[in-house]
Amino acid sequence: MAEPTSDQRSPVWGGRGTEPAAVDRFYSVIPAGGIGSRLWPLSRADAPKFLHDLTGSGQTLLKETWDRLAPISGDQRVMVVTGRAHRAAVEEQLPLLQDHNVVLESEPKDSSAAIGLAAAILERREPGVIIGSFAADHVIGDIRRFRRAIVEAIAVADAGYIATVGILPTEPSIGFGYIKRGTPLAVPGAPSALLVERFVEKPDLETARGYLDSDDYFWNASMFIARADVLLAEMAKTEPELVAGLQRLAEAWDTDDRGAVVDRVWPSLKKVAIDYSVAEPAAKAGRLAVVQGDFPWDDVGDFASIAKLQSGGRGSDLAILGAHARVLADSSSGIVVSDSARLITLIGVEDIVVVDTADALLVTTSAHAQRVKSVVDALKLSGRTDVL
Amino acid sequence: MAEPTSDQRSPVWGGRGTEPAAVDRFYSVIPAGGIGSRLWPLSRADAPKFLHDLTGSGQTLLKETWDRLAPISGDQRVMVVTGRAHRAAVEEQLPLLQDHNVVLESEPKDSSAAIGLAAAILERREPGVIIGSFAADHVIGDIRRFRRAIVEAIAVADAGYIATVGILPTEPSIGFGYIKRGTPLAVPGAPSALLVERFVEKPDLETARGYLDSDDYFWNASMFIARADVLLAEMAKTEPELVAGLQRLAEAWDTDDRGAVVDRVWPSLKKVAIDYSVAEPAAKAGRLAVVQGDFPWDDVGDFASIAKLQSGGRGSDLAILGAHARVLADSSSGIVVSDSARLITLIGVEDIVVVDTADALLVTTSAHAQRVKSVVDALKLSGRTDVL
Repeated sequence: MAEPTSDQRSPVWGGRGTEPAAVDRFYSVIPAGGIGSRLWPLSRADAPKFLHDLTGSGQTLLKETWDRLAPISGDQRVMVVTGRAHRAAVEEQLPLLQDHNVVLESEPKDSSAAIGLAAAILERREPGVIIGSFAADHVIGDIRRFRRAIVEAIAVADAGYIATVGILPTEPSIGFGYIKRGTPLAVPGAPSALLVERFVEKPDLETARGYLDSDDYFWNASMFIARADVLLAEMAKTEPELVAGLQRLAEAWDTDDRGAVVDRVWPSLKKVAIDYSVAEPAAKAGRLAVVQGDFPWDDVGDFASIAKLQSGGRGSDLAILGAHARVLADSSSGIVVSDSARLITLIGVEDIVVVDTADALLVTTSAHAQRVKSVVDALKLSGRTDVL
Repeated sequence: MAEPTSDQRSPVWGGRGTEPAAVDRFYSVIPAGGIGSRLWPLSRADAPKFLHDLTGSGQTLLKETWDRLAPISGDQRVMVVTGRAHRAAVEEQLPLLQDHNVVLESEPKDSSAAIGLAAAILERREPGVIIGSFAADHVIGDIRRFRRAIVEAIAVADAGYIATVGILPTEPSIGFGYIKRGTPLAVPGAPSALLVERFVEKPDLETARGYLDSDDYFWNASMFIARADVLLAEMAKTEPELVAGLQRLAEAWDTDDRGAVVDRVWPSLKKVAIDYSVAEPAAKAGRLAVVQGDFPWDDVGDFASIAKLQSGGRGSDLAILGAHARVLADSSSGIVVSDSARLITLIGVEDIVVVDTADALLVTTSAHAQRVKSVVDALKLSGRTDVL
């Protein structure tokens, strides 16, 4: 584990215009794993959230993620970690994705394993590499500002910290985790960088209002930018067996042994979120930094947030999503998501959420959109997996 | 036109137990024509309301209508007037329906033509026949009481009146027409018979409350029982050309000329509801009687009334209709009508109406269920007839 040193904090400008040279060592990692249960029945095991167009842009969230990252790291330097079942869909979405940048999971093992494996493989291929991990299924509104924040985070990572991006909250959201800001960091090229005081789980509304008023909290956008060796060293402090397994995998990855080692090691890996294995302990140890993300961001966690994104916040509107949507609405507001060619008619329903797919229909309201996950859980329990 | 005479009022008891012999001259007529626009997208041009099971009984409304009437008139004595397009479906539903009791309309001409043609054909085949016309798509809750009312109405018809059945209102409905009671009629075998003072169109809520409180009004259930010659004579007073056309059709009906005469005459017939051509003028002239129907009745005019029927009036319930319905509901009330095998999930929606069919979906509320018809009108206007 390399502790931050004054040497590493030195700015080295150059490369792409005014950006630090460290950007040249940057590699994007996109863990594309989660199904997005709260977006059922649109999101499914075989059609996860990142393979949908949830903004009406005509692009999947995965493709939009690529389009944000590839200009920073270069097309050759974007790695996607995904399930075997999604390989074909991912490669169809990302025609420039290179074969050696596709990391396939034989089964989901949560974010520490996914991001940690990418880090271990890339560090072995390219010692000193700086990786940035970004969810495949978030929405970001201003690519220029996003890039500016990531370039700051790269400078912070180059200085030996684990960096995250804190989004400036615009409302007292109870759907996101929060990051409490600590003292400023004097990292050249990263004027907004601060130490992170702590990570906070999703709060209740009153607490969220307090966070918003205090100006001391950011939204946690699950972005992590760090030197691969720094990230793995931090993870090894809390999860040494996991990291040892990841190193065994990385060692075999670019050899003929990959298949055998994956079959032996991957199933044994511990499932743990990177928030717990890396971010929280690093925050406690003063090694987690945050740069300010002053761009619109949403994790599109449920249909209510899609409705809000679509309507630009105007509650009186009816948002319609779906390339072939046929909707006839009379005095209705909310959102219709159509994954079928059926005619959908709404009369006099307010704040409604209608999600229409070939084999399942959901009708709820914006206020209850978070409860969709419990329905998915109920379906799992009752064995009705044909629609999951 | 035979005016009521004292002779015709004489009771002739006998035949089926204690019922009047006139029951032996009774013929049931079922005009099965209306699509039921307010039940779209369940009801369609090719799947009208009467071909659906709207009560969860496992039977179509048409079959239930048959099952109520055939025991009164006999299987051999039930005539169905329907559109050519529905012939196969009607015959499938009613396997005991005889060929000569199927009257096919080449195009819809409203109730005066449909019932008048049945009357003219039957009077020609069997002079003195008493016909009773009953909608194919209403719901009746107590067959024993229904039969008692119809037997009373037959006695009244035998006495030369045109009889209708007035339903005792149970709430201030604004969805039904009303019948104002007049003076009692001393017809033997029909103790509840009264003259009708007037027919009233659907009232507003305040007026409907006044009707309910006054005890002077019945719901109009669109049942007409009369001697065929009396009915035609009454119709001829207001619509002589229509009746002349119907008589030409009836004359040719059981001959080889039927096809040619239908092609020539039917398209020329005036479209007019029997309420206007017969019931209202007969009421004014003191020739319309009403017998009391003390049985549950509903015209199932919209999805709200189906929900009410299904839940027994309990608003907190979720009614589910559809032989293959798969519904998962969490804190929701209203009605789901499923004409598909799709899984329908409701979360936190109250008084909701969800109607799910292969090519169209409707989401509305009980309070807006009447507005479905305007959507159908809008679809017609915009040429989207594929889903009508």
